[in-house]
Amino acid sequence: MESSLKLFDTLTRKKVEFEPINPPHVGLYVCGPTVYSDVHLGNVRSFLTFDVVFRYLNFIGYKVRYVRNITDVGHLTDDADAGEDKIAKKARLEQVEPMEVVQKYTYGFHEVMKIFNILPPSIEPTATGHIIEQIEMVEQIIARGFGYEVDGSVYFDVRKFQEEEGYGALSGRNIDELQNNTRALDGQSQKRDPLDFAIWKKAEKGHLMHWPSPWGEGFPGWHLECSAMSRKYLGDEFDIHGGGMDLKFPHHDCEIAQNIGATGKAGPKYWMHGNMLTVQGRKMAKSEGNGFTPEELITGNHKLLEQGYSPMTVRFFMLQSHYSSTLDFSNDALRAAEKGYNRLMEGYQRLEDLKVSESSSVNIDDWSAKCKSAMDDDFNTPILISHLFEGVKMINLVASGRETISEDNFVKFKKLFEDYIFVVLGFKLEGNESNEDGAHTQGLMELLIKLRKAAKLNKDYTTADQIREELNSLGISLKDSPDGTSFEIN
Amino acid sequence: MESSLKLFDTLTRKKVEFEPINPPHVGLYVCGPTVYSDVHLGNVRSFLTFDVVFRYLNFIGYKVRYVRNITDVGHLTDDADAGEDKIAKKARLEQVEPMEVVQKYTYGFHEVMKIFNILPPSIEPTATGHIIEQIEMVEQIIARGFGYEVDGSVYFDVRKFQEEEGYGALSGRNIDELQNNTRALDGQSQKRDPLDFAIWKKAEKGHLMHWPSPWGEGFPGWHLECSAMSRKYLGDEFDIHGGGMDLKFPHHDCEIAQNIGATGKAGPKYWMHGNMLTVQGRKMAKSEGNGFTPEELITGNHKLLEQGYSPMTVRFFMLQSHYSSTLDFSNDALRAAEKGYNRLMEGYQRLEDLKVSESSSVNIDDWSAKCKSAMDDDFNTPILISHLFEGVKMINLVASGRETISEDNFVKFKKLFEDYIFVVLGFKLEGNESNEDGAHTQGLMELLIKLRKAAKLNKDYTTADQIREELNSLGISLKDSPDGTSFEIN
Repeated sequence: MESSLKLFDTLTRKKVEFEPINPPHVGLYVCGPTVYSDVHLGNVRSFLTFDVVFRYLNFIGYKVRYVRNITDVGHLTDDADAGEDKIAKKARLEQVEPMEVVQKYTYGFHEVMKIFNILPPSIEPTATGHIIEQIEMVEQIIARGFGYEVDGSVYFDVRKFQEEEGYGALSGRNIDELQNNTRALDGQSQKRDPLDFAIWKKAEKGHLMHWPSPWGEGFPGWHLECSAMSRKYLGDEFDIHGGGMDLKFPHHDCEIAQNIGATGKAGPKYWMHGNMLTVQGRKMAKSEGNGFTPEELITGNHKLLEQGYSPMTVRFFMLQSHYSSTLDFSNDALRAAEKGYNRLMEGYQRLEDLKVSESSSVNIDDWSAKCKSAMDDDFNTPILISHLFEGVKMINLVASGRETISEDNFVKFKKLFEDYIFVVLGFKLEGNESNEDGAHTQGLMELLIKLRKAAKLNKDYTTADQIREELNSLGISLKDSPDGTSFEIN
Repeated sequence: MESSLKLFDTLTRKKVEFEPINPPHVGLYVCGPTVYSDVHLGNVRSFLTFDVVFRYLNFIGYKVRYVRNITDVGHLTDDADAGEDKIAKKARLEQVEPMEVVQKYTYGFHEVMKIFNILPPSIEPTATGHIIEQIEMVEQIIARGFGYEVDGSVYFDVRKFQEEEGYGALSGRNIDELQNNTRALDGQSQKRDPLDFAIWKKAEKGHLMHWPSPWGEGFPGWHLECSAMSRKYLGDEFDIHGGGMDLKFPHHDCEIAQNIGATGKAGPKYWMHGNMLTVQGRKMAKSEGNGFTPEELITGNHKLLEQGYSPMTVRFFMLQSHYSSTLDFSNDALRAAEKGYNRLMEGYQRLEDLKVSESSSVNIDDWSAKCKSAMDDDFNTPILISHLFEGVKMINLVASGRETISEDNFVKFKKLFEDYIFVVLGFKLEGNESNEDGAHTQGLMELLIKLRKAAKLNKDYTTADQIREELNSLGISLKDSPDGTSFEIN
């Protein structure tokens, strides 16, 4: 397996050669959604980032096992893990079983992924489906001296881990500074140190989701599930762990601590983090009121939206920026993306009609190498897109006869151009062609009815009859009445 | 909560008043798919049956918690449970992790449900997600004397259960006859009695899916998951348990035994079983080669299919037969269903244009009562459909002026007619209107180009220009070339 792929490893903060542990296999783990509410566009960006990583790794020949979890329990309402389980809270509000909430939002999440043509992962494990594996991991962490139980809860000993292995490498947090910033919260007095985090929580009375464990009835700490599930499906050591930038701390630093705490191994070889989507410079978040849903985006039904945008326009908008940069949402930027995407797809549609020549004046190998090196350079989709526009230019020049392309080159170019658009960047033809057709039928019929009326007025009955008969043969019948002519599609 | 719903209880073999345990809440459990291969149309019928049950219970005001499981482990290849775990076997063949197989076919299953407009259940629990609950149930069965462990496996003591509680009530099987028909199979010698079934199986070397348990590494017996999950989400006693007829024995009889064995309570108050889909009189099954997939059905790409049929045509075909009858698939029957469904939908489309009068000559209350009593009579969809055709007739008579309808009655009728079609029977408008539009655009454009050419030949440039300009305003541009005129949609 030859590859010259480089990626930016957020742990070492360096762009490095990608050398998988066990090629051609690649293990990729990405933190999935917490299914207690609808996903918003900011979440979509993160999943899209790793969709393209998954697609490109497959495209260059790796066999990728892509695991993206569903957090259906254990995500506390604040990161100091003193809060209430988010899912259980919502469930009590709605007077329903927590798994009903989970079901509703898992379906919703899958719908959204489909709308944006984000591929399903190879495995989509749930936290509630891996309680046994999480309990086993807690036992191992305790056995290796990095966890301690107090009254039915188990905490990770951050101070000890810091001394022996070093804590916070990913986020670069300094443990003493963290300590100074940590307030002593109620109910946390059982921790040896305020920085310690729960890996198993005792279920208080009324808590809806709990399971038996060696420490009594309880539920896993939020950080634990990703450690347990990445390990189960990818092994103690695997290739890439991804997630949104905001998960670096504490979630991912805690994962590393848990992994080493349980097995002595850190888990992923490379860490990748996608950057945020902002709106007018502020992070998109439900709490900010700027986190519109995909549906609002498509319909334009949100105060921040001047119009609706198609899912592929949004996908294009996001991929025109590198995943590691922040991306600011604005109507101007979206409209520009809409134009850009349409221009790209027009190029694609024109491709089919190109005439081939004896020889080529265009250099396809060169172009192909540039596309590949863009993606090999830490999945640089904006550069790839600029090369695809070079491709569109080439198509136009060949179409107008100012450049020529040989059959061999055409076949090669066409395959690559299409692969980059549909396979790697994951665009898809949108169904609105047919919606437009619906609108067209109405407009075209109005025109034909007008022409027929004019023909009749001019006593040109041949034309009037021709229109009626040809429409009949299309399965469309005209009905004349005192109010005018209407049509019916049979 | 007033209701006069009757259902056929397959345990007592009687049509009985439906009296939920805790109205207005209803607990409904239905055996879901085993996700190791694509679902075929026979499976779809079973899920459709309970989709209509779910829809109608909601429609008449119950608050239904509908649980339909996903069997992602533990379904053995033969019912004598000597076989290999179906999912693990497939996984080894494909050299993938079993959960990758599960992921693929779970997605596929959800796609198929969506195509046929079968609603998602309230909760869709997986067997692998409830190992702890299954282990707890095994422990309870052992504690109450109905289970015994041999070398890491646990079996249910059918003979003892038969003596104390009676086994096989649902299927009506006689335990001594069963005994005579049971061959002693290899590896089953550890059972006290050949009729005993595994509730926990020791994982042999190489078995891919296994979990720790009080009896060592193993996995749950197939029958156990439905007992454990119905109990967890609906309680020890709940209202309705449904499934395909072929699940009566051994699956459902084993469930009853396990429920009583663990809790002393039988679980569901009512049992409902949907009948089979046959093809030329034989049960539709993958092993018979007559189990076409929904995709084959829609495209018509299967040797038994003379054409493709739309999902709503198939839904109509199935609902035109009572769920408790066998239904034989044939191209003639499907074509008839296609006509019938179209006639119903034409009636629906004509509804909007009806003119109301001062008084009604039609009796809506009568019609409404007949519709309700059809569904109240064990969900009799074929009778309901016949009343909907009465409704179509009424629409036509009112449209032609031979009957009249008052505004009040019209509003009432319209609401009910639409509710029965879309809410209760779950039909949906199909997207192929827009596909037809696509075809229409082509035909209409050809006609317009022809008319414009004729106008030019007649030196009627006003008309020719009018056609070009009005098309422009629709976003369609004409291109004249020596080969003729083509058009482009912008």
